[in-house]
Amino acid sequence: MATQASEQVSAILLISCPDQKGLVHTVTQFIYTNGGNVIDIEQHVDRREGRFFMRVEWDLADFVIPRESLAGAFEKALATPLQMDWQLFYSDIKPRMAIFVSKHDHCLFDLLARYQSHEWDAEIPLVISNHPDLERSATNLGIKFVHIPVTKDNKAEAELQQRELLKQYNIDFIVLARYMQILSDDFIRSYPNQIINIHHSFLPAFPGARPYHSAYERGVKIIGATSHYVTAELDAGPIIEQDVEHVRHTDDVDDLVRKGRDVEKVVLSRAIWRHLNRQVLVYNNRTVVFGN
Amino acid sequence: MATQASEQVSAILLISCPDQKGLVHTVTQFIYTNGGNVIDIEQHVDRREGRFFMRVEWDLADFVIPRESLAGAFEKALATPLQMDWQLFYSDIKPRMAIFVSKHDHCLFDLLARYQSHEWDAEIPLVISNHPDLERSATNLGIKFVHIPVTKDNKAEAELQQRELLKQYNIDFIVLARYMQILSDDFIRSYPNQIINIHHSFLPAFPGARPYHSAYERGVKIIGATSHYVTAELDAGPIIEQDVEHVRHTDDVDDLVRKGRDVEKVVLSRAIWRHLNRQVLVYNNRTVVFGN
Amino acid sequence: MATQASEQVSAILLISCPDQKGLVHTVTQFIYTNGGNVIDIEQHVDRREGRFFMRVEWDLADFVIPRESLAGAFEKALATPLQMDWQLFYSDIKPRMAIFVSKHDHCLFDLLARYQSHEWDAEIPLVISNHPDLERSATNLGIKFVHIPVTKDNKAEAELQQRELLKQYNIDFIVLARYMQILSDDFIRSYPNQIINIHHSFLPAFPGARPYHSAYERGVKIIGATSHYVTAELDAGPIIEQDVEHVRHTDDVDDLVRKGRDVEKVVLSRAIWRHLNRQVLVYNNRTVVFGN
Amino acid sequence: MATQASEQVSAILLISCPDQKGLVHTVTQFIYTNGGNVIDIEQHVDRREGRFFMRVEWDLADFVIPRESLAGAFEKALATPLQMDWQLFYSDIKPRMAIFVSKHDHCLFDLLARYQSHEWDAEIPLVISNHPDLERSATNLGIKFVHIPVTKDNKAEAELQQRELLKQYNIDFIVLARYMQILSDDFIRSYPNQIINIHHSFLPAFPGARPYHSAYERGVKIIGATSHYVTAELDAGPIIEQDVEHVRHTDDVDDLVRKGRDVEKVVLSRAIWRHLNRQVLVYNNRTVVFGN
Repeated sequence: MATQASEQVSAILLISCPDQKGLVHTVTQFIYTNGGNVIDIEQHVDRREGRFFMRVEWDLADFVIPRESLAGAFEKALATPLQMDWQLFYSDIKPRMAIFVSKHDHCLFDLLARYQSHEWDAEIPLVISNHPDLERSATNLGIKFVHIPVTKDNKAEAELQQRELLKQYNIDFIVLARYMQILSDDFIRSYPNQIINIHHSFLPAFPGARPYHSAYERGVKIIGATSHYVTAELDAGPIIEQDVEHVRHTDDVDDLVRKGRDVEKVVLSRAIWRHLNRQVLVYNNRTVVFGN
Repeated sequence: MATQASEQVSAILLISCPDQKGLVHTVTQFIYTNGGNVIDIEQHVDRREGRFFMRVEWDLADFVIPRESLAGAFEKALATPLQMDWQLFYSDIKPRMAIFVSKHDHCLFDLLARYQSHEWDAEIPLVISNHPDLERSATNLGIKFVHIPVTKDNKAEAELQQRELLKQYNIDFIVLARYMQILSDDFIRSYPNQIINIHHSFLPAFPGARPYHSAYERGVKIIGATSHYVTAELDAGPIIEQDVEHVRHTDDVDDLVRKGRDVEKVVLSRAIWRHLNRQVLVYNNRTVVFGN
Repeated sequence: MATQASEQVSAILLISCPDQKGLVHTVTQFIYTNGGNVIDIEQHVDRREGRFFMRVEWDLADFVIPRESLAGAFEKALATPLQMDWQLFYSDIKPRMAIFVSKHDHCLFDLLARYQSHEWDAEIPLVISNHPDLERSATNLGIKFVHIPVTKDNKAEAELQQRELLKQYNIDFIVLARYMQILSDDFIRSYPNQIINIHHSFLPAFPGARPYHSAYERGVKIIGATSHYVTAELDAGPIIEQDVEHVRHTDDVDDLVRKGRDVEKVVLSRAIWRHLNRQVLVYNNRTVVFGN
Repeated sequence: MATQASEQVSAILLISCPDQKGLVHTVTQFIYTNGGNVIDIEQHVDRREGRFFMRVEWDLADFVIPRESLAGAFEKALATPLQMDWQLFYSDIKPRMAIFVSKHDHCLFDLLARYQSHEWDAEIPLVISNHPDLERSATNLGIKFVHIPVTKDNKAEAELQQRELLKQYNIDFIVLARYMQILSDDFIRSYPNQIINIHHSFLPAFPGARPYHSAYERGVKIIGATSHYVTAELDAGPIIEQDVEHVRHTDDVDDLVRKGRDVEKVVLSRAIWRHLNRQVLVYNNRTVVFGN
């Protein structure tokens, strides 16, 4: 879809609500009668849950409702009567992403390379790490790098400092690029479905620490990686992307780590792409990922 | 989506037309104002071609237009003014499929196994072969098997006999399950986008005969299979499904053939599933495959 | 490698022993000095375990040790001094396979189709089922089908009857083609690394019953299948083959089941192929799978 | 196998010769009787060509032949009588790699990230480009970057300058990281099987320029990338690695390019890994790739 390449300015609505007759018609009518030209529309009904999901993007060129009134108009006309959870985005407002990283550098390097190649229509103003090692990689690209050591004792203060930086840099969402610290429930609740983690196994297999060692021990023939939104329960948040790689008896733990790095990089970057393109909706700890 | 599992009766519209503002709204309005409840809707715009594609399925329970009038009503209200190419299907009318096969049996066996397992909501009343070998496989399941030898000299008569059988058995579409004869242009034109072939390479690589031998010669590290609608140009029709399998230097031609068989079976059955679920639209020799 | 296609008669040795210097040389010398021509040789050293594994196949045409003396000669010359676990096979002795099945028919149909296509150099003289439903599929191919109902109360007798049949038909190994009964430890111990199961998830994720339902609940983006040797601990035996398929939010449980069937069929058949070609060695609940 | 992680010093022999009886025994005997401990051995026989291939690695700790005599001793004892083509490597001598790049930066960034992460036991002292754009990426890591513009008119001089730099920096092999210039036959002949290219299609489909555009036009459902050794015939050299990615009708050319970049990066890096580990042998324009 390459929605980011487009030069026109568009609005994107993500909707989740109880299913009922005529929802697509109602929403497209609202857009159409106000002069909007639908660029892309996708809907999904989860019949077990009786839940309706929709992503609709429309060109704002001839749209008659001004931005400052749109949210209110939509809320009144549709969202309130139809009990919609909804989010509204504009294609000309770039999401701002912070990266948390520890010592494993491959995911960070990959994210920064994509940023440098302008693969993403996003800003990365901030990298936070509990180690100083990777500072140069960030500052070389003009990105602020802040070293915040985390220990058992200073965790609360460290998070306080992190949250102040996130505010200061107007961060919209956080990517944990193999960040080896566990965030507090309170921190996580402040960024609901806005913290993307990469876990180095095909969850739910091998949650927690050292999944490649566990994979080796169990003798699996595939390894994988999982990108998910972070929730209070470790490695149990809604899954955005997964992929795998075949391995053999000739692969020792070091080989699994090496092969796994490539899967981690690709899976994490795909999840970020989805998130940046406003294609992900969460309901009941599962994701709807539009635009596949 | 498992649309076939549903017990409700639904209508499915496949639409292809020049793109313009408000098409989704116009179509859903037609359905909604006539009492239809949209079950699933997907649209796609090919911006290079300026072409709009849509698949919409709706529950007929409260729909007020009777079946015998629906086509006419849609034609008048929407299709003619909007220059739509369109197809209308009903979920309670089972497509009827004929299989053409030669001596390679794996695809036929796989199709018949799926049929026997009720994986498909379709009828298979007829198998036609230019060899007598596989008769038992069909007749064991109560399927008519007709042996029609094909030679250079009798091709026209053979096709005549085939076409009479296809009419007699009310066949909607044909699956070439490794059928080793080339159909005439005239035959192909009579079944536009209704003849599904499986080719044993990842087209456009290795068209024509003996692709596994060519793949071995070239030393590729992946082999594949391609399912496509048959057109006059050999192995050049619109692609519905493709998949691949990794191979190694240890694999000789026999190994490629063996590994390839599994890819062929899966790719062909996926293409048939798409076709049966009315998810495939063809435009400019390319397919739109909804519901992925 | 297509080892089965070969017309020459060969011997295959599978060796597992403590690692030490010169093992490849010692074994190849034994073969070479007795007139054997090595066709294929593979070795693997598990450095963590200090364990050496080897598969060697040689042409018997000019080999001077007669079959009846080979085991004894090898035992005395190499196996005893080097503490080898070893197995010896001849390419002209076809393995005899029994299939256990319940009501899910897709794996059985797939196995029988491969058998019918002569994909495998094996005999399948016997199918045992706890349900009568699939009798025709076996008997159509001249395979003995025995219906042995299994209940909580008659399990011991049922297994006794099964084991007598396995002896009577000289069965070498058993394939559980979605057999829904749990075998007793005693039964399992009688067929060490000779019972191949297909589990419908990418183990260790979702062991036990209803893995597709669990996968749906968890919201994974890949499903998979695992073929493993059966051990006393449920779904925890050494893994021979695994593969996966991508799924989306649009796939409900029925879709997972449908897509999963194809993965199950392919994974199970690959595991059987490995087993038939004598390419699998088990050590510490992990497999060495030679030959690709 | 993670052979690079090992601290012991080993020798690696790659052998290609006419097949005959006892080759494995003969080679391992040479190593064993001179005190070498085989770490890893793999062989392959191409029966159609009657050709034997072998990779053997042994620990030099107790090996009695000194390095300066080894090649001569092997030549005399084995290589000459058995008509072997052979290459000898030592694990403590790091291969030296030069990168050629144009303006597409993703492969370069990926290679440099891996280099920076010490994923490879190699030196990258030199990057050559026909554009100045990517200089900083190289010099930031202390790598010499040389801008050599290439036009129709200066090609010969440009290559002369390139070859002098390759000599000056003792380069062993060259990686074309989306280098958009065609090298002369003469240049290519000077680095036989030492120039690794990444082509952005699953060859032999879509050779030449703009493969993603061709893939889009043809409507394929998979795209891919191919890493191969460069030969005089464009995009027709021996294939080392290939991989693919599924695409859909929703993917336009920009999406193919974006998805393709990830496949290119992974495929190129795997090919380099194989080459660095001395796992690749070329015969008749096909590769034997040992070690997985």
